This record gives sequence, structure tokens and C-alpha cells, in this order.
Amino acid sequence: MESLATDSQHELDRFYADVAALDLQPLWTQTRNLMPNEPRPSARPWLWRWQAVRPLCARGSELVPIERGGERRVLALSNPGLSGLPFATPTLWGAFQYLGPGESAPAHRHTPGAIRFVIEGEGAWTTVDGDACDMTPGDLVLTPSWCWHDHKNGSDRAMIWFDGLDMPTVIALDAVFFEPHPEASQPIATRNASERRYGGRATLPASTTSSGASSPLLNYRWRDTDAALAALAGESGEPAVTLRYVNPLTGESALPTLGCEMTRLRAGARTRSTRRAGSAVYVVFRGRGTTVIDGVRFDWGPGDSFVVPSWTAVDHQADEPADLFSIDDRPLLEKLGLFREARLDAPQTIRERFRPR
Amino acid sequence: MESLATDSQHELDRFYADVAALDLQPLWTQTRNLMPNEPRPSARPWLWRWQAVRPLCARGSELVPIERGGERRVLALSNPGLSGLPFATPTLWGAFQYLGPGESAPAHRHTPGAIRFVIEGEGAWTTVDGDACDMTPGDLVLTPSWCWHDHKNGSDRAMIWFDGLDMPTVIALDAVFFEPHPEASQPIATRNASERRYGGRATLPASTTSSGASSPLLNYRWRDTDAALAALAGESGEPAVTLRYVNPLTGESALPTLGCEMTRLRAGARTRSTRRAGSAVYVVFRGRGTTVIDGVRFDWGPGDSFVVPSWTAVDHQADEPADLFSIDDRPLLEKLGLFREARLDAPQTIRERFRPR
Amino acid sequence: MESLATDSQHELDRFYADVAALDLQPLWTQTRNLMPNEPRPSARPWLWRWQAVRPLCARGSELVPIERGGERRVLALSNPGLSGLPFATPTLWGAFQYLGPGESAPAHRHTPGAIRFVIEGEGAWTTVDGDACDMTPGDLVLTPSWCWHDHKNGSDRAMIWFDGLDMPTVIALDAVFFEPHPEASQPIATRNASERRYGGRATLPASTTSSGASSPLLNYRWRDTDAALAALAGESGEPAVTLRYVNPLTGESALPTLGCEMTRLRAGARTRSTRRAGSAVYVVFRGRGTTVIDGVRFDWGPGDSFVVPSWTAVDHQADEPADLFSIDDRPLLEKLGLFREARLDAPQTIRERFRPR
Amino acid sequence: MESLATDSQHELDRFYADVAALDLQPLWTQTRNLMPNEPRPSARPWLWRWQAVRPLCARGSELVPIERGGERRVLALSNPGLSGLPFATPTLWGAFQYLGPGESAPAHRHTPGAIRFVIEGEGAWTTVDGDACDMTPGDLVLTPSWCWHDHKNGSDRAMIWFDGLDMPTVIALDAVFFEPHPEASQPIATRNASERRYGGRATLPASTTSSGASSPLLNYRWRDTDAALAALAGESGEPAVTLRYVNPLTGESALPTLGCEMTRLRAGARTRSTRRAGSAVYVVFRGRGTTVIDGVRFDWGPGDSFVVPSWTAVDHQADEPADLFSIDDRPLLEKLGLFREARLDAPQTIRERFRPR
Repeated sequence: MESLATDSQHELDRFYADVAALDLQPLWTQTRNLMPNEPRPSARPWLWRWQAVRPLCARGSELVPIERGGERRVLALSNPGLSGLPFATPTLWGAFQYLGPGESAPAHRHTPGAIRFVIEGEGAWTTVDGDACDMTPGDLVLTPSWCWHDHKNGSDRAMIWFDGLDMPTVIALDAVFFEPHPEASQPIATRNASERRYGGRATLPASTTSSGASSPLLNYRWRDTDAALAALAGESGEPAVTLRYVNPLTGESALPTLGCEMTRLRAGARTRSTRRAGSAVYVVFRGRGTTVIDGVRFDWGPGDSFVVPSWTAVDHQADEPADLFSIDDRPLLEKLGLFREARLDAPQTIRERFRPR
Repeated sequence: MESLATDSQHELDRFYADVAALDLQPLWTQTRNLMPNEPRPSARPWLWRWQAVRPLCARGSELVPIERGGERRVLALSNPGLSGLPFATPTLWGAFQYLGPGESAPAHRHTPGAIRFVIEGEGAWTTVDGDACDMTPGDLVLTPSWCWHDHKNGSDRAMIWFDGLDMPTVIALDAVFFEPHPEASQPIATRNASERRYGGRATLPASTTSSGASSPLLNYRWRDTDAALAALAGESGEPAVTLRYVNPLTGESALPTLGCEMTRLRAGARTRSTRRAGSAVYVVFRGRGTTVIDGVRFDWGPGDSFVVPSWTAVDHQADEPADLFSIDDRPLLEKLGLFREARLDAPQTIRERFRPR
Repeated sequence: MESLATDSQHELDRFYADVAALDLQPLWTQTRNLMPNEPRPSARPWLWRWQAVRPLCARGSELVPIERGGERRVLALSNPGLSGLPFATPTLWGAFQYLGPGESAPAHRHTPGAIRFVIEGEGAWTTVDGDACDMTPGDLVLTPSWCWHDHKNGSDRAMIWFDGLDMPTVIALDAVFFEPHPEASQPIATRNASERRYGGRATLPASTTSSGASSPLLNYRWRDTDAALAALAGESGEPAVTLRYVNPLTGESALPTLGCEMTRLRAGARTRSTRRAGSAVYVVFRGRGTTVIDGVRFDWGPGDSFVVPSWTAVDHQADEPADLFSIDDRPLLEKLGLFREARLDAPQTIRERFRPR
Repeated sequence: MESLATDSQHELDRFYADVAALDLQPLWTQTRNLMPNEPRPSARPWLWRWQAVRPLCARGSELVPIERGGERRVLALSNPGLSGLPFATPTLWGAFQYLGPGESAPAHRHTPGAIRFVIEGEGAWTTVDGDACDMTPGDLVLTPSWCWHDHKNGSDRAMIWFDGLDMPTVIALDAVFFEPHPEASQPIATRNASERRYGGRATLPASTTSSGASSPLLNYRWRDTDAALAALAGESGEPAVTLRYVNPLTGESALPTLGCEMTRLRAGARTRSTRRAGSAVYVVFRGRGTTVIDGVRFDWGPGDSFVVPSWTAVDHQADEPADLFSIDDRPLLEKLGLFREARLDAPQTIRERFRPR
């Protein structure tokens, strides 16, 4: 019997070898690895401290000029679970961009879409297809897919903002196109025109010919976001209220591939734990508090950034009034019919406390 | 030959009589009346003077109480071309509603959708499905199809607003449903909550589950409209800029059957003449000027209202900075693929000047 | 007191006279007439017998040539409730078109959209924007808004079909445009090309650039409709099954303004009574039976046509297997958020039997 | 100077080390690798010969039972450019499934959506949410996201079909959910009901409540596809015509994440070379011919499968009339605004001929 079994095993081994030799693979040996009952993200919940990141940004500015080829002085969140890839999650690029006084970053365009959320400084602008968009802390500036864009710091202080891109997704789809602009900076045709045209409250120019997948409004001002959060929080008894930045032509997410949200937390109360298919990257704009992700406690303060992988349990609690900006891949999952969320019945038990390296 | 012709004529007469007796009608005798080369609206360009309308509204308030059955103290624009119907155009109801100090108009709901554009007074509110919407001059308040609504003047001065409804369309479709509320006034659950929830600038509550055909934002404040007009006018070199009020969830018109716009005219310049399929009713909110409709000159000032029938040539010219509110049936025509517009090459020649009765 | 009352009445009379003189109308005297609790259609349920209509069509062909200006030899259903208008319902035109052997009807285009449902004859075609669409009994041919179309009977027998148009709606919107083609007949570029391109079962040419409000498929063949009805009836235990003709690019109704359906009735069973907002016109393609509309019984056989006004209770019962073609305004009501339907709890009591004049 | 440079280099090294230690990465050192001017797919153009694959499928059936956990007897195309992943392209899973006489594969559901394209055998069926869908060669059967499905071969011959899934995409999004059915086979409620309900030619059940992202039609029969291809080819003078399988409720792709097409090639003519963003997997259903991908010539015959990576130049030429089934990620790219295509001006030069291992 043994020899039969051995024969059989030999035959099977030969079979698997022949399969592999023909660039085929059996499904049955890996079915449940490929398709587990629930997502098992390789990205890890992680947090980057502003007090560590900011000095590195500044050091970089002394050591590394901004040049064609490199294009931008940007430090990207590299999730330790993602095998050395410079991605915050499998679908999201998160990074900090530093522009010293008077510096500029050259004009180009690419199919990945980007957002800029301003952390520090003012007097800089991003020019998007000829419209210079002024940037002050808390502002969200869009550079949608395939729009020419360059950045300029016209002030005498450093500017730092958070860059969010759908780049990992566009790379995964083998759909990256890139083009440097013939000039270092594109000509400025207008300044903040998108706000004047599309920045009304539920009004649009009658001449608008609704089209684009991306928002024609390029700058979402902090003063407006702040006012809308205050109004919404006044209306709600929940520990948190969340706004989504939308394309005013469609009410859909500002970029078709990337969601942007701002969450305002009251001090004290803990939000209910929720799991969501799809990942997110948070940047603390204001306040201090704690987020629990799958039982791990992350303490945060202004400028800190952290990652919420897919289907992890998440809740937030603020020690003082706090505002958390975030990007996510939810628009993508919703378009594909893959979004789901679940609320946990009970608060998470905190198992440990995250200590960044 | 004559008798043959006569015979033939008799036969034809008998044929037409038989056709009529069977409740049939030949097309061929009326093809081009039914389908002319271009629209020949029976509605006439017309203007109602505020100095005539307002006193009548006030007289009405002394003579006629607001009661169940009558429901509202409203004087409707009755286009002289529409055979005595109480309609401004074949698709649009336009009217002025007067609510004396302390008065209220009872709660009901109906399938026709309505908008209220405030002309005069403050301290009144319209409650829409439990949300009390405060009303001040220049505000636009929606009462979408089949929403409970009632009006209350809590001030000690009269309130007057313009009512715009899609009622003629809904009547033509035999789709009017109406229900009086069991109470004279519905309970007020919230006050201006729709503004706090949906009144952000291109931000929406993340919890919004996009649904409705109608806007969840019920009150479009004049201060916001004014600011958006100012920004747009600053951006534009045209004699006029026009904003469209939209549903923030979709970017489409605030009501699915009725368009609402505000046009700001610079003093001096005359707009280019345009023809549009579909009709509109204008109410002058601010300023003085002239509109030419198919060669007839209409002079207007604050509170005046006038009708633009389908496919008439129209241009405007303001003597002083002016704001014109208008309603139209364009959302309807666009949904049905029937909208068109044409710009005239040359300014219209003014043939005569309109003098209201 | 009397004199006071009289004074007051005089004052009121003067007020109403002044209101009327200024082309205004009070709402309160007519609120509930304008907005009754439920639709009170002025169109009446009505039936036209084929045995009366067909001979008239034939007589017409002997007396009246088809000429420019008249354009078509068509007898239209003129609903007795609609004050002499040549309309079947307030939104629907229904008519029978007769084309003698060898005759043709000249090419033109208009914004009202039309459908042709073939009753009798074969060997004719309708050319739509250059594509000649062959017509045999049971076929549905579209001539969408603003498409050039002309008809040609290439056979030696008469052709009769039912014409359904959204014309009353387009007239009500003052949006009729019409243009005669420079030639009597447009050149034929292709024959039945729309079927070859868009007539697959849930397949479309990969090169299709989805666009139009109207279906690019112009001819829905009876053999396909028949097969689909048979399959659906095999699947269903209901007394009736109904198919809707759709635009294969969108799954929406074949024309944006006009719904087309085919209902197959089993012999014997009575359908459940239903009310629907919006009206319909039925043409009996095959079989005999009875329809009850608001308690009035209409007996029908092949070629008979009848009208179902808005919100009337309707049920059908076939004496033998029957197929009813119908057009309706439901796409319009659905787009505007005005469609509703209600199922009655109990079968209608039959009060009387309709006898056409 | 040297020491200065050395110092500077040391400083830079320390900086990069500190950056890495904090789980950050500089963008500037890798900008153009991450974002090249055009896609540089790591997936390679590749072909698998049916004469090699089929025997392996059969050998597998003798060696490997179908069991829970393994779930399916499937050999997956493993693109040699994808580092050992069992994926045909970065977004597409392509595989061959073998079901011996009388065998069945257990019921489960998962968020990745799948299609089955039948290569060989008949008398098997896939049950999808209770509807048993019969399978014969050339049929396309859908098992949309999260639908219960199991397979059964009721015949006495082997069944082989091609499995196409969006699994790599759903894995990349960390959005895989999987659930085994409590029973080995789900109960069969209906047989081919989806065809009877939704298989009409541009007709739909009137009772359809349009909803789903995925097609309610589950089986696209070869006889229909064949007829539609023949009609389309008759209409076209091109060397190839291509049909897209669509959701009859929306006209959009049958699955929201996966496109399915069938291309019919005339013998002799070479198609124009085209590049498309996004990848595809082809399966030869019928005929022999040649495909050139980025200058490499792939000769193919029935059952062969090959991969077209993103933005590679592709043209086809058939030696005899041929039908190529394919799956692609185009619906995904289109939803995200990332789809583009370019036609090459000149035919590709053939540099070499592909020889599979």
C-alpha cells in the first residue's frame, strides 16, 4: 500500500511540476488563501508622528533640490506591511510635500489623481490647468487626473501639505501616463477662478455643461469646511460628524477614484466601532485623541497621520475638539459594488498601545 | 363636370361627417397647425406691475381670510393668451402669496412641486416635513412634491412672496394628488436643519444616502446667492451672469420639474438675444431695466413679473445693477430631449412698448 | 347688518373685478378644482371598433391623396372628453395610418417622437435617417424625435398601422419643431441595419458609443416579441404578462417620452384591478376579451383600440389567448417623480357596458 | 572639495537611513519609475496551447478530487511576468475548469465576480441563486459578485470551461469575502429562468424594477451570440466585428468589474493595430490565426488562450473564420476615467514568433 501511495504522490508531484512548467497554477491548493472569509489586509495599522516627520521634511529641503525627474520633494508613507512599497495602503498614496520659501515644483500631468491638504504655511499656490489656487491651512486642493499642475511657494516661510493620490490603484491597473510640461511653470490664466465659478452653495453657473468625472471646483476652503462642520455638529448628537468633499456638478466624490472626508470629534465621547471594506489614511488637522484599530490604541496629535486597513475595526475618541482629514478608496469600491460596512455591537477591547519606531 | 365635383364634395363631406361621428379626426387637414415649423406659443409675453399687484394683495388680505379649502391667499398670473386659465405659461404657475401679521396658511401636501421666492417681509417660515425654514427677502424655499408644508408669519408685518409651481404640467399629466394635513399646522421638529445638513459648499454629510429626485436642501439663502453672483460676475465680462439653484446631491435642478435661476445684470450692456424651447417667468428682485421679447419692450422695476413664452427672442438690459429671479420648465424639456436654444445674430429691433392694462 | 353685508359683497365683487382686470386670478376660489385629492381626468375611457375604423380608413384612401402639407393619411382617436382635440388622452396621440398599394408618404422630421405598430399588410417600410425598416404585422417601428422618416408601401395590398405619438405633450410644452425633407423620399442608405447592429440579445457592438435618449434599434420584430412573451408566460402563473420595449443601450423605454408595451393574456383569468397615474392607449393585436375601466365593461376583438385615462381602475380578461399592444406616458411621469400605482383589494363591480356610437 | 562632497554624501546617506527607519520613502528617487510616460506592464504577452492545457486538465481529474476547501478543479493562467502570482494579468484571473462526468463542485459565494465560457461538453449546469443555467459550448454564464453558485455535470462526458474573474482586483482592494453554502449543492428553484425573464431582444418584463449593478440575465447563449455576430459582420466591411455582452437593464457591461466580448474575424484581413489602457485575456473559440502583440507573433487555434497586457499594440489576422472570446478590465477603467486607446498609423513589424515553453 505504501508503494502505491508513494507512486500516487510521485504522480501528483510530476503533475504539479508539469502544471508549473506550463505557467499554470492549481486553484485548489490556494483557494482559501486567495479568498478568505473576510479581508486579511497585508497593510498594517500604522501611525507616523508629526514630530518625527516634520524635521525630516525640513532636513530634506536642505539636502535635496527640487528638480525635473524627481519633480517633487515628497516623503511618502511606506506601510510596513507592504513589502517596501512606498504606499500607505494597497490603493492609497499618502505623503508630505515640503516647499521652501520661494521654491517651486515643476509643471507636469499624470493620470493618477491627487489632492493636497494644507498643514502648514500660506502664500503658496497650486496652478491647475492655468488656474492658480491659493493654499492656506485646512484647504483642500484638487489636481484631478491628467490636469497640468505645478506648485509655487510665494512666501518667505516653508509650506507643508499632505499629498493623497490614487497612484497605487492606477499602477495596479497599468494605466499610468505622465507628461512633463514644456515649461517649468505653466502660465497663470486665472487665480481662484474655480472657486468663483463653482464655489456657490447649491448654485451653479447656468452655463455649466455638466461633464466631468472630476470636480471643476479645485479648492475647498477651510473656512467653508469649518462652517459646514460646525453646522452639522450643531445638528447632531453623535460624538463625530463627517463631511465628504463632493463634485458640485454631481454630488459624487470630488475625485472619481479617491474619497476625501473631514471628521469633527467632540471631546470625550468614543465613536462606535465600525469595519469598512477598503482602506483610509488619516491626517490630524487639529486636536488630540485616540483611535483604536483592531484592538491597538493609537494616540495622536496635530500633524500625525495613520492608516486604517480594510475591514479593521475602528473607533475614535478625542481628548479635546479635533478635526481629522482623511482619504479613502470608497468611491472605487462603491462603483464596483464592493463596498460594505458593519457596526460592532460592543466597544473594542484595547489590547496594546502603538509605539512608532 | 360640376356635378361630378359636387358629388365628390358631397362624398367628402359625408366622409368627414362619418369620421367625426366615430370620434375620429383626420390628421391631414390640420397637420401643419398641430406641427408648425417652430413653436407658436399661445401664451403671450406679458408683464405685471408690482405697483398694481401689491395693493391688490393687500386688499385681498382685508377681504378674504385664509381657510381650509381655499388654503392660501394667492393671486395667480393669468396669461391673457391662455383662454382664462390661471397659468403664467402652459407649464408654469406664477403667483404672489400674502400672509398678514400672525397669519398662517394650513398644512397640506400635493404632487405639484413648489418654490417660494421672498419679495417682502421677514419673520415668517415655511415648515416642510417638520423642518421650519425661515424666510427673508431673496431666499428661495422649496416645497418639493408630496412634502407636507404650511406657512406662518410670526412677525407683525405682512410677508409677500412669489410662488412658482409646476402645477400646469402636473394637471396636464392628470397626476395631481392632494391631501390636507390632519392639523392646521404640522409639528415643528427642527428649524433650518436642511441648511445645517446640506448647506455646505461642495461638502455633504458622509452619511448621506443619495436618493431623491428633489433637493434635501430646502432653503437657499439670499446672502449665499448674492455672494455667488458677485463672485461669478467678477469672473465674467458678460453683461449678465446666471446661477441655477441645484440639488446638492446631484447637481441637477433643485426640483425635477422646475428650474430656478437668478440673473445678475450689469448696468448698461444689453445681453445677446436668445430663443429657448420652453417658457419662463421672471420676477424682478432688484433694479430697473428693460427686456425685449419678440420685438416688444418691457420696462421693469422691483417686484414686477413677466413671462417669456417658448421660442421667443429675449434680451435684457439694466439701467442700474439688477437681479432677476426666474422659474422655467427647462429641466422637463431636457429630460425629454426637447430642449434647444438659438442665439440671434443681431440685436432685436424694438417694434413697440408694452403697456399693461 | 344687511347693508354691511351688501357693502362687503360689493367690495368683494369690485376686488374680484379688479383682480381679473389685471390678468390675475385668486387661487382660493379654485384650489380644490385645480388640485383635487385624486386625478379627475377629463379624458374618458373609450373604445373604437376596428370594424368601424377600418372601412373609414379605406374610404379615406379613395377620397384623399397623400400630399405635402397634409403629409399622412391618418385618422386620429379623438377622445370625447377632450373638447374636440384630436388626442386620445391629454398626453398621447393614437391614430391609424393607411397606405395604399404603391403609395408613399413624404419625408419629414419633427420633435414629437412616434411609434408605428403594424396591424395589417406587409411589404412596406419606414425609412428612418436612411435606414429602411421593413414592416410586418406585430412589428414595432420607431421614428424618434427629429429623425427624418418617410413611409413606402411596396406591395400591392393596403398597409395599416397604428401611430402612437407624444405629440400632445410636445404641443403642451410649446416644443414642436417640424421640417419637410427637401425630397419626397429620403435616399435609402441601408435596409434593416439597426436590427443587425443593435438587435442582439443582451449584446451590443463593442464600438457603440452610448449616447442617445432614443433607441438606436428601430424595429422590434413580432417574432422576437412573441417568443419573449411565450417565455415569460411560461415562467409566470399570472393571468397576464407584460413586456416593455426598451432602448438596448440603456434598458430604459424605447422613446424617452412614450412607453410601449405588449400584454399577453391567458384565456379565462381576470387580472387584478390596478390604478396608475398617467394614461394609456391599447390596440388589440390578437384575441378577444373584456377590459373593465372604472366599472364600465369594454368588449374587444382584433384591431379595436381603447383608452385608459389616468388613475382609472383597470382589469382585463381574455376569452381566448390575446395580445394587447399599448402606449403610455409612464416614462414621462417616472422621470418627473410623478408615477404611482395602486392595486385594488377587490375586483371591480361592472356597472355598465360600453357601446360605441 | 572632496571632503565636502563626502560630508555631504554622508549627510545624505544618514538622511535616507533616517527616512527609511521611520517607514517613509522619498518620492524623488523613484518618481519616473512610479510614473513612466506610458504604462510599462510587468505582465507579459503570453499564450497557452490548448493541446498542452487540456491533457493537464484531464490528468488533474484523475489525481485530484473536488472537495470543500479546494472547491474547484481549476488550472489558472499564471503570467510569467507576475512573479509567480496565479493571475493572467494584474487585474484578471483566467483559468480552465474541468468537471468530470457526474461530478459537482460545491456551492459557495464570494465578492469576486465570475464568468464561465464553455469550451467543451454539454449537459452541465451552473446554479446561480437557485436558477440552474444549462451550459453548452459557446455559452457565457455569469456568477455575479456574492451570488451563490455551484456546478454540476449531469452528462457522461467531461465538461471544460474557461473561468474569468475580477479576483486580482478584488484582492488588491482587500475586499474579498467568501462564504461556503451550508449544503454541497444549493436547491434548484428554477431552470434557465433568467433567460425566459430577461432574454428578450430589447424587451424587458414590465414589472422589472431596475436595480442591480450586475446583469439579471445569467446565460448568454451561443446561438444568440452567433446570430448577432453574423448580423453585425454582414453589416460591416471591417476585418473584425466585436460584440460586448451587456446587462439588459442598463446596456452596461454584464459585470461591473469585468468586460466580456466576442470578436469575429474574417479570414485573410489583418485588423488595425490598437493600444488600449487595461489588459485582456483571449480564448479562441473557433478558427485559426495570428495575433501580433508588441511585435511578437502568436499563432493560435481552438482552445488556445493568450494575454494582452495594457498599452501593448495588438492586431489580429485569421487564416480561417475565427471567433475569439475575451475578458477585460475596461469597465473598471472607464468608471474611473482611466480608459484610453490609440490606433497605430502603420501595421506592426513582426520581430519574433512566440514559442510557449
